[in-house]
Amino acid sequence: MTNPTAGMIVIGDEILSGRTRDANMYHLAGRLTAIGIDLAEVRIVADDRDQIIGAVNALRHAHDMVFTSGGIGPTHDDITADCIAAAFGVGIDVREDAKAVLATNYPNGAADLTEARLRMARIPDGADLIENQVSKAPGFSMQNVHVMAGVPRVFTCMVDWLLPRLAQGTPVQSVTINANLPESKIAGPLGKIATEFPDLTFGSYPYYEDGGHGANLVIRGADSTQIARAEAAIRTRVLNG
Amino acid sequence: MTNPTAGMIVIGDEILSGRTRDANMYHLAGRLTAIGIDLAEVRIVADDRDQIIGAVNALRHAHDMVFTSGGIGPTHDDITADCIAAAFGVGIDVREDAKAVLATNYPNGAADLTEARLRMARIPDGADLIENQVSKAPGFSMQNVHVMAGVPRVFTCMVDWLLPRLAQGTPVQSVTINANLPESKIAGPLGKIATEFPDLTFGSYPYYEDGGHGANLVIRGADSTQIARAEAAIRTRVLNG
Repeated sequence: MTNPTAGMIVIGDEILSGRTRDANMYHLAGRLTAIGIDLAEVRIVADDRDQIIGAVNALRHAHDMVFTSGGIGPTHDDITADCIAAAFGVGIDVREDAKAVLATNYPNGAADLTEARLRMARIPDGADLIENQVSKAPGFSMQNVHVMAGVPRVFTCMVDWLLPRLAQGTPVQSVTINANLPESKIAGPLGKIATEFPDLTFGSYPYYEDGGHGANLVIRGADSTQIARAEAAIRTRVLNG
Repeated sequence: MTNPTAGMIVIGDEILSGRTRDANMYHLAGRLTAIGIDLAEVRIVADDRDQIIGAVNALRHAHDMVFTSGGIGPTHDDITADCIAAAFGVGIDVREDAKAVLATNYPNGAADLTEARLRMARIPDGADLIENQVSKAPGFSMQNVHVMAGVPRVFTCMVDWLLPRLAQGTPVQSVTINANLPESKIAGPLGKIATEFPDLTFGSYPYYEDGGHGANLVIRGADSTQIARAEAAIRTRVLNG
């Protein structure tokens, strides 16, 4: 059994302009790895209809599941829900279940649902709601595409709710070994060890600090016995080679 | 004149696994904004030949320039240079100019260039070198694709060298206005103001903190006079509306 694969689409001019440093992708990547879902590709696109629809359609066919972050609030630049409906070729409208959830966020309930607030209850036909315990306005799952908010606190909360409901894989184990060696001395023996363990992946992540440099060697795989054997091989043949 | 557009490809399993939080995309996004190059799209892909080639070919035709980060070191998982050559359909080999630069990093010069180290002097035919003042191993520009290292300290150094050599645009100005209002109250008047200033973009970035919530409203554009007028409109009609 291979693990399910996932794509992610981060929607937002604020990441592309450098105003905001991504937090949602980093959070989701770690959470997916922990439950054996392989995040295979991420695309960061602007608040642009064609870009969003293109990315959704590319990734939803390429991967078992897709997660999106951003663009589901009440303002004019929140166009994600409409783009998802367009990508799937379905209608979108204010939906009663979403409206009922949203109404619980205001003192006078549904009477407080202004036009702007009702935008957050527009859900593509056939989608299921994703719960939002922070600010109520729901995300939604449209087939294999899970649409969540961009505000990190809301995104994290939606991920907490969603992940236990998804098909999971075998968590990937990993071991990190620090090597106080230049990568050019690591490369030969590490490459040979990598060919001896075809079921594992080996990464080498160099760093440069004042006064020295080295690399973190990361072994990843599903089988902890194999990982332990590969680690021993690295300690013997790379670190003391 | 519209500004040049750029794409970025971040190559690396370590970002997709959640082991490492992206720093290079965040750095480059801010640097490009400051010189009037619009970062339009980012893709984060694994150390996978098909994924890298596919992303390079998609983005190099869609944008004026493309920046890549990662995968140009000496180890077996460093496959970016080969993928770039394949994407452009050109050959790749150890090149004398790259070898000469690399040799300056070792006490015995070219005599110290082992097989692993020589991998870092493999440059696609027709590419120009990008200088690396940290660890010498060069990046390169292949037509409009600029290939740089993944280690943030080296990436930043290569960006410093490269950006002044690229065609630049008109820097985008921006103003951020904090609104201590729920986004649902901001949405109506802000959307109307956005239609009145078609040359500017307006973003609304909500936040939730203990004890309150609000949004940062960001106006972006090339014309500071227009931005000032839009800011006045927001202060009058959104904040005091």
